[in-house]
Amino acid sequence: MNADGHAAGGWSIGLDIGGTKVLGVLLDDAAAVRATVRVPTRLGTEGVVASAAEVVRRLCADAGIGAADLSGVGAGVPGLVDPRTGEVSHALNLDIHERGVRLAPLLAARLQGVPVTVENDLNVAAVGAARVLGLRGDLAFLALGTGVAAGLLLGGELRRGHRGGAGEIGHLPYASTGPVCPCGQRGCLELYASGSAIDAAWPSRTGRPAAAEVFAAASEGDAVAIGIRDSFTDAVAAAVRLLVLTCDVEHVVLGGGVAEVGAPLLDAVRRQVRSQAEGSPFLRSLRIADRVQVVPGGVPVAPIGAALTARGAVPRRTSVEPVGS
Amino acid sequence: MNADGHAAGGWSIGLDIGGTKVLGVLLDDAAAVRATVRVPTRLGTEGVVASAAEVVRRLCADAGIGAADLSGVGAGVPGLVDPRTGEVSHALNLDIHERGVRLAPLLAARLQGVPVTVENDLNVAAVGAARVLGLRGDLAFLALGTGVAAGLLLGGELRRGHRGGAGEIGHLPYASTGPVCPCGQRGCLELYASGSAIDAAWPSRTGRPAAAEVFAAASEGDAVAIGIRDSFTDAVAAAVRLLVLTCDVEHVVLGGGVAEVGAPLLDAVRRQVRSQAEGSPFLRSLRIADRVQVVPGGVPVAPIGAALTARGAVPRRTSVEPVGS
Repeated sequence: MNADGHAAGGWSIGLDIGGTKVLGVLLDDAAAVRATVRVPTRLGTEGVVASAAEVVRRLCADAGIGAADLSGVGAGVPGLVDPRTGEVSHALNLDIHERGVRLAPLLAARLQGVPVTVENDLNVAAVGAARVLGLRGDLAFLALGTGVAAGLLLGGELRRGHRGGAGEIGHLPYASTGPVCPCGQRGCLELYASGSAIDAAWPSRTGRPAAAEVFAAASEGDAVAIGIRDSFTDAVAAAVRLLVLTCDVEHVVLGGGVAEVGAPLLDAVRRQVRSQAEGSPFLRSLRIADRVQVVPGGVPVAPIGAALTARGAVPRRTSVEPVGS
Repeated sequence: MNADGHAAGGWSIGLDIGGTKVLGVLLDDAAAVRATVRVPTRLGTEGVVASAAEVVRRLCADAGIGAADLSGVGAGVPGLVDPRTGEVSHALNLDIHERGVRLAPLLAARLQGVPVTVENDLNVAAVGAARVLGLRGDLAFLALGTGVAAGLLLGGELRRGHRGGAGEIGHLPYASTGPVCPCGQRGCLELYASGSAIDAAWPSRTGRPAAAEVFAAASEGDAVAIGIRDSFTDAVAAAVRLLVLTCDVEHVVLGGGVAEVGAPLLDAVRRQVRSQAEGSPFLRSLRIADRVQVVPGGVPVAPIGAALTARGAVPRRTSVEPVGS
């Protein structure tokens, strides 16, 4: 027991460290969210560590606890992560271009030795989504944001892959005659199924996110919006089918910025999944549409998952090796 | 010890039950192949059980052992399998159209109670390929035969999936404007990356398998054969990329009938993988071509894997549920 009467291991903090903000949550003993804090991300290794430490300090201050009361801090970061060592490589959105930046030890040192775990951001989001939606089976968290990629929770374990390529479905071909992707290939799925694809097709008119505007206008019968929505959801449905026909996950949870659209997104994606399965008894037998869900609006699944990971809720077996250059 | 001086558990038999033949191997205590037998498959549940039992009897007779000396018999079958119960569903190539045919108990009863395990044929092939090639990391066995599908060995366990759809990559789209697949979709990968695709494009001239003729003629500069080979291997390379960008397996082993082509197939597929990665530093960093291997000619990886599965060499955790009709 510590000074607050909580078992050591009672409090934990999860961080989602993105290119623009760090979002943090404080979980209590029952894994309920007790506080959230958001700060702008300072870039580069030193900036990331300072921003993360600031979030931890503010969460602790809000709850009236000290860093020593924390059983652990978990952080999700975009990029290649070796969770055994807490090393991060090629986290370009964080302006970390080097390989093997020892983010976990650096942050732990800043936090007076609190145990810190670092994971890929989509992996922690998969863990958080499973928790928030109460899902026990195999799950893919399909992030529809600037890019498109998936976090995979298979057999109760995070699927990290041999070289950190697991779930990188955004760079599989979707339209072979499409434009060139920044990755160098042509017609990648990410060019069609991402929030960026909607942003490019529909400049926001009201200042609201383009995806929200498109789905609202489509529901009111705007032909242009309907075309954008259907083209987008057709690509998302292809991503869902891809995850099922390779990994056969029981659940595909739509997340990322576009998921804030909520039920209209879910309905439209399920409709496209069913449309793609029309005429194929094989696809229909897999009941793919029933597997799709969406992250509940405003629920910070990534930091919640990061905090759960820090609590040791997820087995750590992995076969990650650094990507060669 | 039994009468032959082998530890109970020393001998095991593996069967690969296909639509035309049952291929069986006898493994000794050191998991070395001591005998192989092949018989034509009699179809339907009773026929399959009788054919399998005949192979077991002949293997035992050849080695001078009795069924009671076997620690187990493992069988790989095409179709949906629940390895916990030994039930097989929708094994259409075996003329088993029902759901829940209890193949393992039926065969065990025919073999005086020898323990029998039944698995999907691609799963046992993945186990066998890992053993034969001495591969320890995550592995996909990519079968290039009548159809195209993969068996997945991830984290030391077979990936079976929620509804038996894991590895069914042959029914992902490859050419959206392509012909209609028997599955009901259009332009499935299987229509381009299978042995059937080569057979359809190149009627055999010598009675040898069409794939062998095509690769031989292509190496001699035959323009038609080069076109067929390159179209085929481009589709196979797409399948390999798909497996890496979803599951990030360390190894992709080419198997199935076309794999008998051997080194020329491997070379051509690696060349196409490298060609697809040209211009994409992202793809190049994943070193996909280095991950591709081919089953050594004439080595019966599926029955070997089935025998290893019967020996309990593979963890049996699974989340298979029968496919709804």
